[in-house]
Amino acid sequence: MTELERQGAQARAAARVLATASTVQKNQALEAIALALETCWDDVLAANAADMAAARAAGMRPAMLDRLLLDEGRIRGVAAGVRQVMALEDPVGRMVEMTTRPNGLQIGKKTVPLGVIGMIYEARPNVTVDAAVLCLKAGNAVILRGGKEAFATNNALTALMRGAIARAGLPEDAISLVQDTSRASATELMGLRGYLDVLIPRGGAGLIRSVVENARVPVIETGAGVCHVYVERSADLDMAARIIENAKCSRPSVCNAAETLLVDRDAAAAFLPMAQARLEPWHCRLRGCPETCAILPTAEPADESDWDTEYGDYILSIKVVSGMDEALEHIAAHSTGHSEAIVTSDYFQAQRFLNEVDAAAVYVNASTRFTDGGEFGEGAEIGIATQKLHARGPMGLRQLTSTKYVIYGSGQVR
Amino acid sequence: MTELERQGAQARAAARVLATASTVQKNQALEAIALALETCWDDVLAANAADMAAARAAGMRPAMLDRLLLDEGRIRGVAAGVRQVMALEDPVGRMVEMTTRPNGLQIGKKTVPLGVIGMIYEARPNVTVDAAVLCLKAGNAVILRGGKEAFATNNALTALMRGAIARAGLPEDAISLVQDTSRASATELMGLRGYLDVLIPRGGAGLIRSVVENARVPVIETGAGVCHVYVERSADLDMAARIIENAKCSRPSVCNAAETLLVDRDAAAAFLPMAQARLEPWHCRLRGCPETCAILPTAEPADESDWDTEYGDYILSIKVVSGMDEALEHIAAHSTGHSEAIVTSDYFQAQRFLNEVDAAAVYVNASTRFTDGGEFGEGAEIGIATQKLHARGPMGLRQLTSTKYVIYGSGQVR
Repeated sequence: MTELERQGAQARAAARVLATASTVQKNQALEAIALALETCWDDVLAANAADMAAARAAGMRPAMLDRLLLDEGRIRGVAAGVRQVMALEDPVGRMVEMTTRPNGLQIGKKTVPLGVIGMIYEARPNVTVDAAVLCLKAGNAVILRGGKEAFATNNALTALMRGAIARAGLPEDAISLVQDTSRASATELMGLRGYLDVLIPRGGAGLIRSVVENARVPVIETGAGVCHVYVERSADLDMAARIIENAKCSRPSVCNAAETLLVDRDAAAAFLPMAQARLEPWHCRLRGCPETCAILPTAEPADESDWDTEYGDYILSIKVVSGMDEALEHIAAHSTGHSEAIVTSDYFQAQRFLNEVDAAAVYVNASTRFTDGGEFGEGAEIGIATQKLHARGPMGLRQLTSTKYVIYGSGQVR
Repeated sequence: MTELERQGAQARAAARVLATASTVQKNQALEAIALALETCWDDVLAANAADMAAARAAGMRPAMLDRLLLDEGRIRGVAAGVRQVMALEDPVGRMVEMTTRPNGLQIGKKTVPLGVIGMIYEARPNVTVDAAVLCLKAGNAVILRGGKEAFATNNALTALMRGAIARAGLPEDAISLVQDTSRASATELMGLRGYLDVLIPRGGAGLIRSVVENARVPVIETGAGVCHVYVERSADLDMAARIIENAKCSRPSVCNAAETLLVDRDAAAAFLPMAQARLEPWHCRLRGCPETCAILPTAEPADESDWDTEYGDYILSIKVVSGMDEALEHIAAHSTGHSEAIVTSDYFQAQRFLNEVDAAAVYVNASTRFTDGGEFGEGAEIGIATQKLHARGPMGLRQLTSTKYVIYGSGQVR
């Protein structure tokens, strides 16, 4: 048995206990975690200072350093997030359907925890707590595998959470951190069949590719977002300009930010200068098709790879299209299935876009930036699923459960 | 582009059309398929005769030959199955939730097809039609990959269905059969990323293992069933004997048949002879733990591997346990998460078993044999899912859909 298999077996044992833990017990554990974060942060801050020093010495970029940093304010924010999860409804134990069959069998479908969840993620240490408490509230054990730059911080946070869970009378193995930060340990976690019920990777394209290659357990893919805003000819152009500004520039690093603007040829000459005026204050670079560049002389020419690039930055690709057919073709070819928006005043065009675009979230006359657990009313989220099985779109507590059929009989045989 | 990638691209194009096809259109295609089966079966029977001749020459066992055989009566049965699927409610296009957010966004969650489904299955040619029409009714394209012994039959059935779909005005590429029956083509299908939204393997342990190793697309595992019946000390022993007889012997080859009987020590001396008397007329062999063999001298001794074996035959393993704790431990260690049953008269024991056993279907006082789409009221099924993501238990039409969020805005930005 490898170290990770041992950890898997411990998590599985903890999951069996958690599966029948009451909401009160789980909330007591969450309360203990929040309280520990608010009162015992010295070890966490010391560990984070060590991670920060090592990262600085290794020449980490300032934006990444900022993602790694924890301070009192951020820890309080994380604790507040834990209390928000406490306040959410327990997703476990709801009988979502119950029927009595002609033979008298009463067949119910009940929500149950998934079991043991593996999380692989990158730099931000707050994910360590956010993900762990969501899993815990839904009755799951979790095995965390964060970025190696944040290992000391993650380890301190995990120790703090394990202590709190034990004080609340639940098994501390409900939350554990993979201790080996080598690439091999990530690969082993992806193949931990028999211990993991699901693996949720949260990170960039490289991580997702590695998971696709190496996973031997069910995976929920999250996060890749090449999102489009399509300005149809009947659009209110002022509204369209506000929407593309918001979709691109309000937070370009996140997955629900837009990467590509599609605009109908009939509206291009009027709209593109308006859009440019909105984007200019953000110093947003534009990469356009030839028609775009003819209208906006300062735009750079886009090449084919631009249509498949998640910039995560103040860069927008722009393509002029002949109409709905070409827009739908472009989106079908280049969308990652995350969030897609049309701006239009035409009822039939709106309906066609909603019906034909294949993505987790399809918008009419709103920014793609709303694809988010909080905005959708799910409470906290563990990621945005971009595949079609089990969960699609923001994954809240409900998506961290499975179901089982419970059947009450009185001696029926078939 | 390989041949299979070309097939994948054609299926994807067909799926885009199917996604917006009306229920009427899809039912017309199903009606055309049923009619073709009922009236144009000559090619199918000729192809099946060729498959049967080749299989006989290769020395196929009689039981397998029987699974491969199609005759008029069986084809009529398959056609009747198609009409049953026609009669089921269309699972696509239901708005399962819709809320208006404080900012005025109206966010709905709508059922949509999964897209392109890959099916890998073994000998029975009726699966070719059963699976294809379920996929079609739920708006999905399907790429079928059946067993090579049934290739000619499957090819004739697929040609018949494609012709019928085209006559009904839908794209014939909605249904296609992998033409290469080598193992390499199965492996390639498992890795057909970008074309398949989900792969559903239906077959024995070897197929499932191969899928786990090779799949690069989301998979729904089906079918493996090491199911237990636990006779608790308070059980009505007559009822328990009827249930174990039914669970083991009514159809031992299927996945919801029981493989292991667990019996409380307090009830063993009274119950085991009763069970044996029920099983004897079926010539059911018994493999028992030492205590079982002491009570039933004709039972063979079981070894450790018996507890993990899906016999698929008239063989039952039997273990005497000290009570609920040991029964739950045994099930947790050896269950494949399919169907588990307790026979008991004790309310608290029943509740504990329902709450703590982790399986797709958990029964009190009924046979495990009821785990089935028809018995559960789902109509037809494409398999029994034994994993926890997306679908668990009998997979009917509803489980062949995903959801998408559709968002009606009026210019909202975040």
